Amino acid sequence: MTDLITNGVFSCFVFYGVLLVIKMYIIAIITGQVRLRKKAFANPEDALRHGGLQYHRQDPYVERCRRAHVNDMENILPFLFLGAIYSMTGPSLAVARIHFLVFFMGRMLHTIAYLFALRAPTRSLAYTVAQIPCISMAVQILIAVAAYA
Amino acid sequence: MTDLITNGVFSCFVFYGVLLVIKMYIIAIITGQVRLRKKAFANPEDALRHGGLQYHRQDPYVERCRRAHVNDMENILPFLFLGAIYSMTGPSLAVARIHFLVFFMGRMLHTIAYLFALRAPTRSLAYTVAQIPCISMAVQILIAVAAYA
Amino acid sequence: MTDLITNGVFSCFVFYGVLLVIKMYIIAIITGQVRLRKKAFANPEDALRHGGLQYHRQDPYVERCRRAHVNDMENILPFLFLGAIYSMTGPSLAVARIHFLVFFMGRMLHTIAYLFALRAPTRSLAYTVAQIPCISMAVQILIAVAAYA
Repeated sequence: MTDLITNGVFSCFVFYGVLLVIKMYIIAIITGQVRLRKKAFANPEDALRHGGLQYHRQDPYVERCRRAHVNDMENILPFLFLGAIYSMTGPSLAVARIHFLVFFMGRMLHTIAYLFALRAPTRSLAYTVAQIPCISMAVQILIAVAAYA
Repeated sequence: MTDLITNGVFSCFVFYGVLLVIKMYIIAIITGQVRLRKKAFANPEDALRHGGLQYHRQDPYVERCRRAHVNDMENILPFLFLGAIYSMTGPSLAVARIHFLVFFMGRMLHTIAYLFALRAPTRSLAYTVAQIPCISMAVQILIAVAAYA
Repeated sequence: MTDLITNGVFSCFVFYGVLLVIKMYIIAIITGQVRLRKKAFANPEDALRHGGLQYHRQDPYVERCRRAHVNDMENILPFLFLGAIYSMTGPSLAVARIHFLVFFMGRMLHTIAYLFALRAPTRSLAYTVAQIPCISMAVQILIAVAAYA
């Protein structure tokens, strides 16, 4: 049962995966705080509680936070699948760690570039760098299961 | 192979996880039904089939359903990861069940508060309550893998 | 550790799961290419790099790509959970393969119907067909864990 948890590669994956999940939770908290500060609520019931229906409105920075969050879902959630399966294909810890670390650094930079609106193409580069280990893991998984699928 | 499935904690997690996935599927069905009833379609080809291009439009309640669904993705999908890994760290069934049950109840209330537009801060409270077991699981996982990562 | 990977049902699931993740990645690439071609950027910093702030705007086809991607997240990501757990409940390879293949074909058709705006209800039918194996897996999982949950 705890075999996976005591495996170095899987644990390494879990470590970075959980950190990225926490990072996603933090974006949600930031979005909520920006909504309160800018007084821009997606729901009329929230606006009513915070001053009136005139605050049921969009705000460009809230929308930016939303886009950063959706982009994380598009990329971090598939990583949680690919990383778990890749860990079961028996890669060396050193090579696996590089995969997870590049993804982790890429997604951290992506979030920073998004929230601080860094000059293009910083954000796109961070996205692309983070996709490289994902494509690599996807290919290695397909090769590993091809014999059994 | 079936070791995980016959493990009490993992099975308990799977039970609530699958119920929450079904809950997400139901939101999708509700969204579709509201689109048909309100005649508000996101795609022109759908509007054409149901009366004409004038129904290619937004509707506030359809958008509310969409937000409920996206919020579920932001929270339930990471739970499916955290809960699975947490189950492998060897928690007691009683403590684990409380984690899963609090999350499950919180997310059910969140959906009800969203779809019925309950007075704020009902929905935000439900969201916050559901996040507590997630943060708890994330921390316990990080402690468990720290020795191997 | 590699028990799951050398299991026929799990490997079959992983095979189709990874292909669908790659399909989602391709939608993201298509969205980016359409943004460049149509000059329609969600972020001002991207618009500035590609001709000016007047290109910080929405485009109907970019929004269509976005909706296809979000719908994939709503359906493919839960499949990655259901399929993995279902594989552990000991189904026959033949029956399991039908589940995964129907889902895979349904979601491929869904994407094609979305991106080419095929006449309704092609896309909705593809969505519904793909949901059938998901509901089937969800029910079988609930039955399997009910004894232990």
